[in-house]
Amino acid sequence: MKKIYFTPGPTELYHTVPDHLKQALKDDILSISHRSKAFEHIYSKTVENLKALLNIPEDFTIFFTSSSTETMERIIMNLVGSYSFHIVNGAFSNRFYQVANQLGKKARKLETASGQSPNLKNLLISDTFDLIAITQNETSQGIAFPLDEIYQIKSAFPEKLLVVDAVSALPYVAFDYKNVDSVFFSVQHGFGLPAGLAVWLVNQCCIEKAQLNIKNDKAFQGYHSVERYYMKALKNQTPETPNILGIYLLSKVTEDMLLKGIHQIRRETEYKAALLYHTLENHPKLKCFVNEPRYRSKTIIAAETVMPSNEIISYFATKGMILGAGYDKYKFKHVRIANYPAHSKEQIEILTDYLNAW
Amino acid sequence: MKKIYFTPGPTELYHTVPDHLKQALKDDILSISHRSKAFEHIYSKTVENLKALLNIPEDFTIFFTSSSTETMERIIMNLVGSYSFHIVNGAFSNRFYQVANQLGKKARKLETASGQSPNLKNLLISDTFDLIAITQNETSQGIAFPLDEIYQIKSAFPEKLLVVDAVSALPYVAFDYKNVDSVFFSVQHGFGLPAGLAVWLVNQCCIEKAQLNIKNDKAFQGYHSVERYYMKALKNQTPETPNILGIYLLSKVTEDMLLKGIHQIRRETEYKAALLYHTLENHPKLKCFVNEPRYRSKTIIAAETVMPSNEIISYFATKGMILGAGYDKYKFKHVRIANYPAHSKEQIEILTDYLNAW
Repeated sequence: MKKIYFTPGPTELYHTVPDHLKQALKDDILSISHRSKAFEHIYSKTVENLKALLNIPEDFTIFFTSSSTETMERIIMNLVGSYSFHIVNGAFSNRFYQVANQLGKKARKLETASGQSPNLKNLLISDTFDLIAITQNETSQGIAFPLDEIYQIKSAFPEKLLVVDAVSALPYVAFDYKNVDSVFFSVQHGFGLPAGLAVWLVNQCCIEKAQLNIKNDKAFQGYHSVERYYMKALKNQTPETPNILGIYLLSKVTEDMLLKGIHQIRRETEYKAALLYHTLENHPKLKCFVNEPRYRSKTIIAAETVMPSNEIISYFATKGMILGAGYDKYKFKHVRIANYPAHSKEQIEILTDYLNAW
Repeated sequence: MKKIYFTPGPTELYHTVPDHLKQALKDDILSISHRSKAFEHIYSKTVENLKALLNIPEDFTIFFTSSSTETMERIIMNLVGSYSFHIVNGAFSNRFYQVANQLGKKARKLETASGQSPNLKNLLISDTFDLIAITQNETSQGIAFPLDEIYQIKSAFPEKLLVVDAVSALPYVAFDYKNVDSVFFSVQHGFGLPAGLAVWLVNQCCIEKAQLNIKNDKAFQGYHSVERYYMKALKNQTPETPNILGIYLLSKVTEDMLLKGIHQIRRETEYKAALLYHTLENHPKLKCFVNEPRYRSKTIIAAETVMPSNEIISYFATKGMILGAGYDKYKFKHVRIANYPAHSKEQIEILTDYLNAW
């Protein structure tokens, strides 16, 4: 039985990935040097496709890292002088806050009760902070910030870098990149690719901030300085040998997504999310974890279960449908269902049929 | 024409990799969670195979990182309080030294002229140093340290952690791990795998040193602390989502190498290296870069060329044989030929025939 993975990430592969992998073998993508013209072409193609697909402005530069957790470290080490401010609404936004503390920065956070999002209207952030970090789509519990709330932070604090964790949000979420300074994500979520690659977008303000921090002796001058990433990116290269296969597959899947059309992908995501939330709202044994519809993620649907959630997960596994467990303290209290471009309408319809019958 | 990659890494794939990739697709390895039992099984199998293949003692723990450059950072941040000492005989050992400096440590180095290895007999290292770093096999110029010289460092300075960069050395080099504390390598060299995964071995002294450094407020308490790697490794997991496919392929290729037998692999490596060095020694237009045979690497064969080396590289490319350029300042002065388990005797014989005829 062919299984379908509705897990938050790694997850179901985008349907074209197996063919691209086979082509990669034929074209020696797994043997070429990361300093070759062939690799530079793959890098530039990936950047071109991502910019076209996500409508990323020209002045953004795209770096590749190995994970979003690594990206959090690189952001803190490069872009934060002394203080960073974190809006925390789940385990991953809290991880970002912890990383800042661990790296010796004075990190502060605004945090709310689980399943809720902080009220950003009354946000007070003093002048000392370099950076505000927000997680648009909290993978751990399926809470998403409406984009207008994120942009309001930027207009309230235009001098501060606004960094957005979009790990499980893209390519669905249509950011207006003029209102943010840096965005990062991992490819094993919404892009339906194997794990081991993350993408980090920075605008010119980030580049300048990193340079200023180095000048003031407040930043990382190391092998993974923004300066080095940037100098290499200008040549379509990376500081060290990267996950070349991952970058290649990303170039191919973004090409496929461009062919399908981002509007179509977004419409389908919304249709599938509506179907899933409708199912949860009418279900006797499942309940939407996020009460306010405005804050419900379209890509990570979190449900509370009346019984330990491993029971439903085990049952669905016998049907070939792999659901995600809850994260950390919610491990046995939630199921999480990913709704990415890799999940077809038909697959979600079958899943909701089974959920309704359960 | 099927090309053969003699580049230092990425390089020719081990011949079983394409089949393992196809099996990985069939078995959903690219979709499984990094917190699943299935992943834990892959992790433990990889560790078991590596320990058996390389004769690594039980008290070593194996971590996975994304690159050897990242590993250098993790080593410096975790294992060095204030001072690290670096034996530098090429670009990569110098990178390790630079990384230590960049991360704010007081790094010192013993360095020699290019193509030579430092005389370690008169090594003087004061008590203040926590760690001695040595690159057994300098990928940049094909210089290798005889193992007895490395072990003599450990016996001269038993209190210091001895860390060995074995990036392009393994699985060929038969380390006696009792005489070293930490070893790291990347899989896109001697294991013939796609890039994007590195392996970091630590013994209990490293774990204790990292704990002591944290106690003394001298080490990284971050997301990539040795403590976190260790606690996760005990559960056959990694701190963050890793390159799962890379780890899976490593488990499979080490299995194949165990079947072939490490002694056979080592004998073949020596035969092929002898053939290549013999060819160079008798060649009118090529010359061994490393004069002293004792210091010549068996896995990276570096040759000086009488004309710009891109001429020979271009010529061999037309024959389907991809040779490595020189590194950095030697880009147009050297060719580098990798001699890994992925390169068959027949392939090296054909290459030497062509070299002789050139």
